[in-house]
Amino acid sequence: MTLQSRGRKQQTPSMISRFPDLFKFRGVVSPRNHRFFHHRHPPPTPTPTMSDLRPPEHQVAGHRASASKLGPVVDGSGLFYKPLQAGDRGEHEVAFYEAFSTHPAVPPRIRDTFFPRFHGTRLLPTEARPGEPHPHLVLDDLLAGLEAPSVADIKIGAITWPPSSPEPYVAKCLAKDRGTTSVLLGFRVSGVRVVAPGGAVWSPERPELKALDTAGVRRVLRRYVSSVSGEGVDCALAAAVYGGEGGVLSQLLELKAWFEEQTLFHFYSASILLGYDANAVSSTGVGGGVRVKLVDFAHVAEGDGVIDHNFLGGLCSLIKFISDIVSETPEKPATGP
Amino acid sequence: MTLQSRGRKQQTPSMISRFPDLFKFRGVVSPRNHRFFHHRHPPPTPTPTMSDLRPPEHQVAGHRASASKLGPVVDGSGLFYKPLQAGDRGEHEVAFYEAFSTHPAVPPRIRDTFFPRFHGTRLLPTEARPGEPHPHLVLDDLLAGLEAPSVADIKIGAITWPPSSPEPYVAKCLAKDRGTTSVLLGFRVSGVRVVAPGGAVWSPERPELKALDTAGVRRVLRRYVSSVSGEGVDCALAAAVYGGEGGVLSQLLELKAWFEEQTLFHFYSASILLGYDANAVSSTGVGGGVRVKLVDFAHVAEGDGVIDHNFLGGLCSLIKFISDIVSETPEKPATGP
Repeated sequence: MTLQSRGRKQQTPSMISRFPDLFKFRGVVSPRNHRFFHHRHPPPTPTPTMSDLRPPEHQVAGHRASASKLGPVVDGSGLFYKPLQAGDRGEHEVAFYEAFSTHPAVPPRIRDTFFPRFHGTRLLPTEARPGEPHPHLVLDDLLAGLEAPSVADIKIGAITWPPSSPEPYVAKCLAKDRGTTSVLLGFRVSGVRVVAPGGAVWSPERPELKALDTAGVRRVLRRYVSSVSGEGVDCALAAAVYGGEGGVLSQLLELKAWFEEQTLFHFYSASILLGYDANAVSSTGVGGGVRVKLVDFAHVAEGDGVIDHNFLGGLCSLIKFISDIVSETPEKPATGP
Repeated sequence: MTLQSRGRKQQTPSMISRFPDLFKFRGVVSPRNHRFFHHRHPPPTPTPTMSDLRPPEHQVAGHRASASKLGPVVDGSGLFYKPLQAGDRGEHEVAFYEAFSTHPAVPPRIRDTFFPRFHGTRLLPTEARPGEPHPHLVLDDLLAGLEAPSVADIKIGAITWPPSSPEPYVAKCLAKDRGTTSVLLGFRVSGVRVVAPGGAVWSPERPELKALDTAGVRRVLRRYVSSVSGEGVDCALAAAVYGGEGGVLSQLLELKAWFEEQTLFHFYSASILLGYDANAVSSTGVGGGVRVKLVDFAHVAEGDGVIDHNFLGGLCSLIKFISDIVSETPEKPATGP
């Protein structure tokens, strides 16, 4: 029961410097001085022990927690623990959640629908660093309650580096953005996992996803709503998952309307996580707990009165892809008695 | 009577290679084999001589035609002649106009409202290269009919280089895009010229425009609709020029709706040219021949089924700037008997 996350690699010093006003607004101490052993939100449950924690079964992107790597873990109670990333990234992501959770200009509907709920930070034991508790973000597990989660992680934006980034970081990101579909499409598929009716899982390896071209991305987005095994594509779930009320498309359009107006945050390198319950959707033909969530905020910058044109452009491109799939897929006639 | 243009610098070989399908679609010969001494459109007027031609008085960006440089010229009859740029750029821009002018999927309303009409190419004498006629694009003069044109040239997009560009060109563009507001705002002001009621012209130099930050861009966009002399800002013309029916904002929104759907062309490094008649608008308080046009197509790439998320994002950002100015400016009460 859970979702992906990112234990990203550690470069880029002083990401905090592009966020001063955000911190000013909150009136909180600088995240540099932030002490992770203080919970600033009441702990929702007793601190879990190592034996309660496991890597999320449905993780599709980022490092997987292991003896050699830090990675996100879940405790089965509906919470998702993301280890703070090295350098300023982890602190930066905490600072974003702090600011975002309480910002009066963020509409509650947007916060509740499209973002994981933030429950503060917590020191947890990890397999990778025994005896050395590591600070974790405590978030809602976005896929909790889905019996057979089919998940896609889509990194949004042609540009994945905040404008204030140092030159080597820009060069590194740019190479990835040009080497994947980010520059061309305004987004790239970072991970995908589809559960077929019989329970078989289709989940291409990361090198395969990185190598996708435009046609490949289109195929993966079709495959994500197909009810088949292996590489086949029938788009049988397109109307139920992408289309209709509460479907991915209508949620993305609601998100787009907010991005046309909001000038608070620029979501560099954030992802949209799609999720639905392959069991629920295949049994009923509609619904299926469709979720559209933003995740990964280690590179969010302050908007400073300017819209996030980079995220918005990529979002509009994704909307066009999804909307093309919906319109070329006839709605299934209602089956029933 | 005319507009800006660009006699851009000469780098980036083989831009044509990213445009093969566009040419295929048209069934025209490759622009590499294109002979400029053939007019493929009937010449609208007899070929002008050197003495008929002069640099446009209202040019705000690009090289100005002179004894040492090629630059656009006008003949006073409502036509604008833009010298083909060196390398593949000039040929590429011709090929774009050829394809765009006749593409059945381009709505005539979009073509007629937002693009200069294309009248083919023509060999013309130039001051810079006496005795060596140079091929020119023949276009409608977008500012024809405006007695006192106030003009702004706004280069749209955080990314100004087509994805297939060679590395050195990307690096060069990226440095400019990061050094100006392009990356941060999704657009930059490349030129502006405002005519005050008494006829005085305010037109900052290019280095000043290049150095603008977010606040500076906001100030220039306010100054563009101010009816003052010098550096003052009163936004007296905001309602007439930016707001209302047929105003800049409503035209930009119409353009946006097209960009949300169109997957034919990606307009890298193109500009939106704004124009209005300072005399007409100041005397009547409304209207004033407001124009919103796309120009500069030497770096257009094929859309290949994908929307131009880069242009669209920048356009949405510009829309937000303009719309903020409109909403903070109360409409003038109607004056009159």
